[in-house]
Amino acid sequence: MLFSEERSAEVVAESFAGTPDDRLREVMTSLVKHLHAFVKDVELTEAEWAIAIDFLTRTGQKCDPSRQEFILLSDVLGVSMLVETINHRTGGAATESTVLGPFHMVESPPRELGDEIALDDKGTPCLVSGQVTGPDGEAVADAVIDVWQANEDGFYDVQQPGIQPPGNLRGLFRADADGRFWFRSVVPRYYPIPDDGPVGQLLHATGRHPYRPAHLHFIVQAPGFRPVTTHVFVADSLYLDSDAVFGVKESLIRDVPEVDDPARAAEIGLGNPFRTLTFDLRLQR
Amino acid sequence: MLFSEERSAEVVAESFAGTPDDRLREVMTSLVKHLHAFVKDVELTEAEWAIAIDFLTRTGQKCDPSRQEFILLSDVLGVSMLVETINHRTGGAATESTVLGPFHMVESPPRELGDEIALDDKGTPCLVSGQVTGPDGEAVADAVIDVWQANEDGFYDVQQPGIQPPGNLRGLFRADADGRFWFRSVVPRYYPIPDDGPVGQLLHATGRHPYRPAHLHFIVQAPGFRPVTTHVFVADSLYLDSDAVFGVKESLIRDVPEVDDPARAAEIGLGNPFRTLTFDLRLQR
Repeated sequence: MLFSEERSAEVVAESFAGTPDDRLREVMTSLVKHLHAFVKDVELTEAEWAIAIDFLTRTGQKCDPSRQEFILLSDVLGVSMLVETINHRTGGAATESTVLGPFHMVESPPRELGDEIALDDKGTPCLVSGQVTGPDGEAVADAVIDVWQANEDGFYDVQQPGIQPPGNLRGLFRADADGRFWFRSVVPRYYPIPDDGPVGQLLHATGRHPYRPAHLHFIVQAPGFRPVTTHVFVADSLYLDSDAVFGVKESLIRDVPEVDDPARAAEIGLGNPFRTLTFDLRLQR
Repeated sequence: MLFSEERSAEVVAESFAGTPDDRLREVMTSLVKHLHAFVKDVELTEAEWAIAIDFLTRTGQKCDPSRQEFILLSDVLGVSMLVETINHRTGGAATESTVLGPFHMVESPPRELGDEIALDDKGTPCLVSGQVTGPDGEAVADAVIDVWQANEDGFYDVQQPGIQPPGNLRGLFRADADGRFWFRSVVPRYYPIPDDGPVGQLLHATGRHPYRPAHLHFIVQAPGFRPVTTHVFVADSLYLDSDAVFGVKESLIRDVPEVDDPARAAEIGLGNPFRTLTFDLRLQR
């Protein structure tokens, strides 16, 4: 069957009919259907097609070991968030997931409960703590908690090699027998996603800002439970209702109140007053 | 409005509502709608998403000044052909268009009518000729004809720098006052698109071959007429009904008969017998 405008999707989908793997055939067939529908809906011009080819090429070429521009593109189109959400439906019974983001590209350094993860002497001190439980609130043993966040200047360590200490604002913690964890850090701050590449050009051309509201990343795993990849968001952060990557869910927002308690501050090794961020996580079996 | 699975496309489309350029807003809104519909239709897994990110990244990184892997991807998904066809509807009144392909990346060398474009002493000699006319068959003056084809081994000159002479099997011709053109070349041969990159991996994984049926590329322009980008296909070529890039249209297929005429062969400077390929082009005003 030769190509024509009318049957374009049908002709191309047919070329994938011999795909040995059923799932790959299903994915490619659907991709072709939706991609052709898009091109037909907007009647894409050749000049626009050429811009798209150039944009995708530059997006790929912007990627390096510390920069993943295609994940950024997926993020700003809401695709990352959609995939994450589809694959981690909780039915309201567990902590909701959100995007991994492009900066989980190094292993977080193992740390002890209570350790300080802010190694660059910047930011507002904050005690982060919480408890990992099962669906019914029962304590979970042997939970492993991977956390990472940007520094006070809005950059992750991997974005500033030679400027930030390696492993700055990252930590891999093992919760105690009751699933409790705590560590010292700084209050997260809103920051822009990297906008000096093709994705930044797209945001600029469409009148969108590149900012993400203040958040701390978590991946929590425990034997017998489904891992969760999520963030906790700071309630009074700018951009909470216009996250550039659509990561905010109502259930993931927390207040970060100030505590004025010199004895407690001395005990945990923070200046007084300090802030506290409490984030309990409920896992699915 | 915060993100949810149900309203994902709506939330992301809303983020583009402030796009200053109306057309860009229209394109991005449609793209988001179709992209999210695809992800939801197949319920893309995180592992599949990661494969897609890696595939797109490698596709971008495979591109260099003589290789455009994203155009190849667009080609094998039928998108290039769809865009070309949408933008050059002829209503049956003019020569149909087909894909540009990734190898029109250098300027064709200007040549005189009758010149030989096969500079590498390979292939079966062929006289290529035709006439450029307007919609009613009237001769068109000052038509410029850009042609390029692969050599006998299935490669374009830009794919084999240092092996093929630069400009091999390319030519930029000016037709005569009646719109007639002729030049010496070799019979085109089917060949694979470059399949040593990500696009080749996709073809392999989906059981598709990488071949294009034998063809000769044309871009024809003349003052007062719409340019046409097309091919002429050799009627008895392999893969005529399964072109890897969906470029074949019935109206673009031609026989390439053998001619046994020593006097004519001597006159045009080809060995006897030789083949002839006649391709008349009708332009839209």
